Amino acid sequence: MSKPIDFYFEFSSPYGYIASQIAEEVEGRMGRTMTWRPMLLGPVMKITGQVPLVDVPMKGEYSKRDFVRSARLHKIAFRYPDRFPIGTVAAVRAFYWVNDRDSAQARKLAKALYSAYFADGTDISAPATVVEIARRIGVDGDALAKALEDPTVKDRAKREVDAAIAAGVFGSPYFVVDGEPFWGVDRIPMMEDWVRTGGW
Amino acid sequence: MSKPIDFYFEFSSPYGYIASQIAEEVEGRMGRTMTWRPMLLGPVMKITGQVPLVDVPMKGEYSKRDFVRSARLHKIAFRYPDRFPIGTVAAVRAFYWVNDRDSAQARKLAKALYSAYFADGTDISAPATVVEIARRIGVDGDALAKALEDPTVKDRAKREVDAAIAAGVFGSPYFVVDGEPFWGVDRIPMMEDWVRTGGW
Repeated sequence: MSKPIDFYFEFSSPYGYIASQIAEEVEGRMGRTMTWRPMLLGPVMKITGQVPLVDVPMKGEYSKRDFVRSARLHKIAFRYPDRFPIGTVAAVRAFYWVNDRDSAQARKLAKALYSAYFADGTDISAPATVVEIARRIGVDGDALAKALEDPTVKDRAKREVDAAIAAGVFGSPYFVVDGEPFWGVDRIPMMEDWVRTGGW
Repeated sequence: MSKPIDFYFEFSSPYGYIASQIAEEVEGRMGRTMTWRPMLLGPVMKITGQVPLVDVPMKGEYSKRDFVRSARLHKIAFRYPDRFPIGTVAAVRAFYWVNDRDSAQARKLAKALYSAYFADGTDISAPATVVEIARRIGVDGDALAKALEDPTVKDRAKREVDAAIAAGVFGSPYFVVDGEPFWGVDRIPMMEDWVRTGGW
């Protein structure tokens, strides 16, 4: 049995959003499952010395076009959010809390949070909004709201973010297949080739 | 008649190298010609506040793998140069001087300079090396050596670099099709779709 592929993503990343919507098709084509691992790019940027993509002079304006074109290429609804980027620590905590109980539901939650932000234009930074979206897909909202305040849950999420950084994750989406990293929606075909041909 | 597509590149860019080796096939598939426009990323980085890709923490190590994989994907010889990145102002000056006399030969020169650097491991930063490579493809080496010292030729190259920056070019390769920008070897298929479908 092959080890699952690690699929890292940041909820405020348009390319992570696109990846989340196609990840299950990719799993099917590769015959390999993925472990979904939301993380936060804020702490990464402190290490890399980078700033959010849209704030980089010249590149920022370009990236706004590329988000739209990339979504269209993959036939995924996309509207540029009014507030972007946003803090997504509540979304990350909610994901892992749900994931520890039901990983299929956690995937559903990830996709719902992403669609709320990038297709419907809902700012998902507030815990209450995350809870509301989780409730809609059948999560126990009261239990989740309580969990989001729980230091153990906060710590659980922090450890995941630290682990992602330790694994070298500097962008979103970011995949690791048997130790080989692939960054970006545009590297998914290369990853599929990699799996098909058995690597180097 | 459609306007030519602008193809901007930096001679010290591995992705620019890959693009230069496949650009003519891409032209053929699109039924559109390209104007080759070497430029310098150094002045761009002063504006964007970025550093050379391989010097970015985390991302740098990743990029070295991605150069090799991207070259392999396109079936192009590649070895990581001993010195990287390098200054390429002599290469840019030589290109435009040759281009003003014979644009087909300038393309040949660009491909030869790129292969010397990224396939053969030759440091192409020195004017004498550029002249030697140009001589091999039939350029008058003595005339070129003299031209590389000529303030008019230096100014010609500087104006091209300034024009590229004014056009928003922040990376390599960078294509502009009827006002629409495409950055990266990985965006070439998207550019081809764009041309095929007529844009937005």
